[in-house]
Amino acid sequence: MEDLLFPADQRTREIARELFAHVRELPLISPHGHVDPGILADDAAFPDPAQLIITPDHYLTRMLLSQGIPPSELGVRRVDGGQTQTDPRRIWRTFADNWHLFRGTPSKLWLEQTLRQVFGIEPPLTYETYDQLAEKLGQPEFRPRALFAKFNLEVLATTESPLDDLSRHAKLRADGWLGKVITTFRPDDVVDMDWAGWPDRVARLGEISGCDTSTFEGFLEALRQRREVFIEFGATCSDHGHPTAQVAIADDVAAIYQRGLRGMASPGEAEAFRAHMLMEFARMSLDDGLVMQLHPGSSRNHNRYLHRAYGRDTGGDIPQATEYTFALKPLLDAYGHDPRLRVVIYTLDEYTYTREMAPLAGGYPALFLGAPWWFLDAPEALRRWREAVTETAGFYNTAGFVDDTRAYCSIPVRHEVSRRVDAGFLARLVAEHRLSLDEALETIADLAYNLPKKVFKL
Amino acid sequence: MEDLLFPADQRTREIARELFAHVRELPLISPHGHVDPGILADDAAFPDPAQLIITPDHYLTRMLLSQGIPPSELGVRRVDGGQTQTDPRRIWRTFADNWHLFRGTPSKLWLEQTLRQVFGIEPPLTYETYDQLAEKLGQPEFRPRALFAKFNLEVLATTESPLDDLSRHAKLRADGWLGKVITTFRPDDVVDMDWAGWPDRVARLGEISGCDTSTFEGFLEALRQRREVFIEFGATCSDHGHPTAQVAIADDVAAIYQRGLRGMASPGEAEAFRAHMLMEFARMSLDDGLVMQLHPGSSRNHNRYLHRAYGRDTGGDIPQATEYTFALKPLLDAYGHDPRLRVVIYTLDEYTYTREMAPLAGGYPALFLGAPWWFLDAPEALRRWREAVTETAGFYNTAGFVDDTRAYCSIPVRHEVSRRVDAGFLARLVAEHRLSLDEALETIADLAYNLPKKVFKL
Amino acid sequence: MEDLLFPADQRTREIARELFAHVRELPLISPHGHVDPGILADDAAFPDPAQLIITPDHYLTRMLLSQGIPPSELGVRRVDGGQTQTDPRRIWRTFADNWHLFRGTPSKLWLEQTLRQVFGIEPPLTYETYDQLAEKLGQPEFRPRALFAKFNLEVLATTESPLDDLSRHAKLRADGWLGKVITTFRPDDVVDMDWAGWPDRVARLGEISGCDTSTFEGFLEALRQRREVFIEFGATCSDHGHPTAQVAIADDVAAIYQRGLRGMASPGEAEAFRAHMLMEFARMSLDDGLVMQLHPGSSRNHNRYLHRAYGRDTGGDIPQATEYTFALKPLLDAYGHDPRLRVVIYTLDEYTYTREMAPLAGGYPALFLGAPWWFLDAPEALRRWREAVTETAGFYNTAGFVDDTRAYCSIPVRHEVSRRVDAGFLARLVAEHRLSLDEALETIADLAYNLPKKVFKL
Repeated sequence: MEDLLFPADQRTREIARELFAHVRELPLISPHGHVDPGILADDAAFPDPAQLIITPDHYLTRMLLSQGIPPSELGVRRVDGGQTQTDPRRIWRTFADNWHLFRGTPSKLWLEQTLRQVFGIEPPLTYETYDQLAEKLGQPEFRPRALFAKFNLEVLATTESPLDDLSRHAKLRADGWLGKVITTFRPDDVVDMDWAGWPDRVARLGEISGCDTSTFEGFLEALRQRREVFIEFGATCSDHGHPTAQVAIADDVAAIYQRGLRGMASPGEAEAFRAHMLMEFARMSLDDGLVMQLHPGSSRNHNRYLHRAYGRDTGGDIPQATEYTFALKPLLDAYGHDPRLRVVIYTLDEYTYTREMAPLAGGYPALFLGAPWWFLDAPEALRRWREAVTETAGFYNTAGFVDDTRAYCSIPVRHEVSRRVDAGFLARLVAEHRLSLDEALETIADLAYNLPKKVFKL
Repeated sequence: MEDLLFPADQRTREIARELFAHVRELPLISPHGHVDPGILADDAAFPDPAQLIITPDHYLTRMLLSQGIPPSELGVRRVDGGQTQTDPRRIWRTFADNWHLFRGTPSKLWLEQTLRQVFGIEPPLTYETYDQLAEKLGQPEFRPRALFAKFNLEVLATTESPLDDLSRHAKLRADGWLGKVITTFRPDDVVDMDWAGWPDRVARLGEISGCDTSTFEGFLEALRQRREVFIEFGATCSDHGHPTAQVAIADDVAAIYQRGLRGMASPGEAEAFRAHMLMEFARMSLDDGLVMQLHPGSSRNHNRYLHRAYGRDTGGDIPQATEYTFALKPLLDAYGHDPRLRVVIYTLDEYTYTREMAPLAGGYPALFLGAPWWFLDAPEALRRWREAVTETAGFYNTAGFVDDTRAYCSIPVRHEVSRRVDAGFLARLVAEHRLSLDEALETIADLAYNLPKKVFKL
Repeated sequence: MEDLLFPADQRTREIARELFAHVRELPLISPHGHVDPGILADDAAFPDPAQLIITPDHYLTRMLLSQGIPPSELGVRRVDGGQTQTDPRRIWRTFADNWHLFRGTPSKLWLEQTLRQVFGIEPPLTYETYDQLAEKLGQPEFRPRALFAKFNLEVLATTESPLDDLSRHAKLRADGWLGKVITTFRPDDVVDMDWAGWPDRVARLGEISGCDTSTFEGFLEALRQRREVFIEFGATCSDHGHPTAQVAIADDVAAIYQRGLRGMASPGEAEAFRAHMLMEFARMSLDDGLVMQLHPGSSRNHNRYLHRAYGRDTGGDIPQATEYTFALKPLLDAYGHDPRLRVVIYTLDEYTYTREMAPLAGGYPALFLGAPWWFLDAPEALRRWREAVTETAGFYNTAGFVDDTRAYCSIPVRHEVSRRVDAGFLARLVAEHRLSLDEALETIADLAYNLPKKVFKL
């Protein structure tokens, strides 16, 4: 497996080996992810293998669902009163019986490499893997903090709502553990009027911040205050998951806000409010320095069955076509050349790479290209991204890899896959005499370590 | 030619050889095509080489047209009174003189391999090829049924309108021949109000079914009855070629139907009717089990000159951008998790693969991805398809290859190309340590044989 | 560097070498570019290295701007009264300090190969390169006309507005130099009402042509007269850079024209006027034979900061999604099969290649595919283009490479890159047994030399 993911051509493979060896041991920078900080705060042994590996991973439950096996059989709790399988061995068995579905997917790669490298368990994944894994999980060296050290994690960012009291982060900080875990400010739930319960959450925001969120000005003030608190807990970034990339001043934003509080905002007004808020967050960033991350293009809860039976964020989102050239223009007109602003843009729509993403990042100092995300965080897609964006944006307008994961144990392999794919891409440039080996060595270290530290201000 | 289409890298090529050898002799499953069943019902010798190879193949006549040579010089009959070349040797000469135009196209590959493997004629294709081919066509072993056996065709599906009396299929069935030839239910001509002559065809549908198609309910009943007849003649699928993928309930569908019968439906109403009918066909499939195939995205008769001079379906269609995420949602909301429904979706718009097609097929049990189609049924495009969709949808949400051809003699090579491209793709996964050789061997057999049998219920 | 850009696989690389050797020495055909003809008319020594290489090249100034270094520090003149760096050594130093930003970009490839092949200076590019280059520029063999011969340029087309008096071309013609430099008719500045100062330019068009441009008919007549003059100066092509590919008859075009002259046309009317004018230019081409080149899809002056501080055409344009299937239909309906019309279509939106561009060019005799342009004129993008369009359009509906450059010294390497990429693509087809070596040899000579001569009527 030394040559995992490297191009088969011997000449290129040898260069790839050398490049990868150069970055293999560099610490991991994880500036964007969704690990529960409570895992590290509590540092308890992980529960059974099914709860650790299968049940919380939408990539896995989605694939079995696509073949007719409901998530409840993999332990996912139903919100509609339906029954859920709770026996971890039966969950594991159902999963192992369908393991062939994952051939050619990154899930297979991640899971096999995680078993191999983190737990010392050789593929293939079978029923027996359950017992091997369960035995490991009981040992102290597989507790979360021990793994943090083993993973060589220099910094891990989690993601929290402004409504989160950050008590898990406070606990982490209080007990003197030296691992660097920071938060990220993710305000979608108080920005998206279309999301059921918005007025209640705005009220909670008022409470937690001590501001009067019955007015739009008070709402902005509350957000500013929460950002300050997040910054105290290490935040260097905000994160914004919007249906579109639209940024635009809404002259009637205060009136829209009031209609939203009364539950009377139209879908068009909710979109105008989100677009306006991105401009407000950009302005806040000018003052407090948070790096904005913009994740547009997901049609949330597309799968009505999943949404009704299992609730939000259970793997039922589908990407949609996303436009950047005109959507971002108001932001770029206003602050695209302001050295105080930094915006990392992501996409689920790879059919914007050469047309919009790379020309924009290659032309505006405020913009950086975020790593391929979600469905695109996979070897072929990572390779296509480099092949597409590098010729226009170069390497130094990209932001470095982000693992974006809830699956704590998969963090090392996700970074490894990215480093291997970059090694393969750079090796081809060297083999085709487009880059010297020295340039490639310097570049891969920048991509793996220096760029994410710099771009995300870590 | 043993290594045709295999990656040049020696390591990968050797694996590709082994994988291809594993499926090379597997029977051909052809669940979707446009061969005239009369060819097999009559089992007459094929006419001259020009009529067999050139005149009916839009891929060939289009390419010469693109360089200014009208289809009439290749024997295509004009509907506007213009003259048509009828001398097959002159047709063949014109074609051979322009053979260089096909370099790099699948047409060249298909035709050269067909000459070589079916007729034992080595390239290059020249004037002399005509005589060599004409001599073969007179021999009994090159009659359609003899070729059916030689091709190792396990099942061949043809495509007929509900207005077809299926007499050709009846003749096939009546005479005791053992080849399995089945029909497919393709109702576009009675669903598309924009298509000139629609009210007359609806009237004919009434006659052939014995239903009163003056009402929408009668129209639906007529379609149900025709489906039953088609199922008697082996149909396991319906096929729907729509301009868009839109599915939507139209509350006023009965009124639209009546306006359509009076020739008064607007283009928007015609689209609403088509969208509604997809929902009706889905409901019919819940009852009778036909697998729906949806082929959206073609702007039909784009080439006005071709349409006027030569009529419909003469190679003058051009693809258009196609949206799936929102267009299919009403269907997926209603029946996307219903085990009685199966929908195979195709596209002419590869710029939906990772953004929409793969996430949808990887998330809904009712959906399967159809093979790249028409302009995309070619080695580079087939390879890009696997590279794009596999990471999200895996292999097992794809439906297997369909040759989709009118060109009977090209069936074996089309399947061979698909198997070779899959062998090359899987070989790379093995060479890059992403799949074991055993997994790849099992997978290629599934792609070539087991999946199409299962997905299309054959 | 003999193997620059060739695939690393040994088998394929050897074929690529043979193919490239076959065309390496063929003369350069440059049918579309933006070199200042005054350079060749004057034949003066080039000024300092910074003015030659850095300051006028948007690819270079854009990349440094994307990292926060303003174009003024690279010598670009500000139009807003701001200061500009004028010391060429300091400009060079700033550039050399940021040379790593260009890794993986075509700019690096072009510049290193130009230094190497034109000036005999080996990379890496450093501060010292300045002096080496300055020394060369003083020598007579590095004057423009001497380089023209060294470059083996058979023909070089420049691009001028109808308002240009062509005096530079007249001077070239007058002094008996044998180099073939021709003009191209580019009427955007008198066609685009949205472009500030349009009525004044229309008035100037009247003066230069002696026609009364106060009426639309007079405007058309003025354009016809200017085309005749351009044809006298060798023009074989017109060039049209529009935001979209829309062509459409506007019945009220004369009224729109009058509103435009009074500064009262809406953006929609300006678009309708541009769309109409493409139809008028097509009609003119039927008479005078100019080949139309259509370059749609750029959102001009997207970067407001650049536009305000530095003016138009300073690298601040961003591509936008572009539609062809319906946009071009009125033109194709009218003249798509007329042998007197030839249209070369370009795109900045590669996500139209297989869906629209290749099917259109593979179906209409009037259409040819222009080479990948601007952000897409780079090795990976050139390769993707051949991989995408060849299977549907073949090689012979493409128009051959155009360098499209202002950077005179980069012309040879740009053509070399194109020839090398084509050699690599064709070598793969040969290695995969999809093309014989003889066919590939003939094809690469056609792509490099014969096709552009034929398609652009040179």
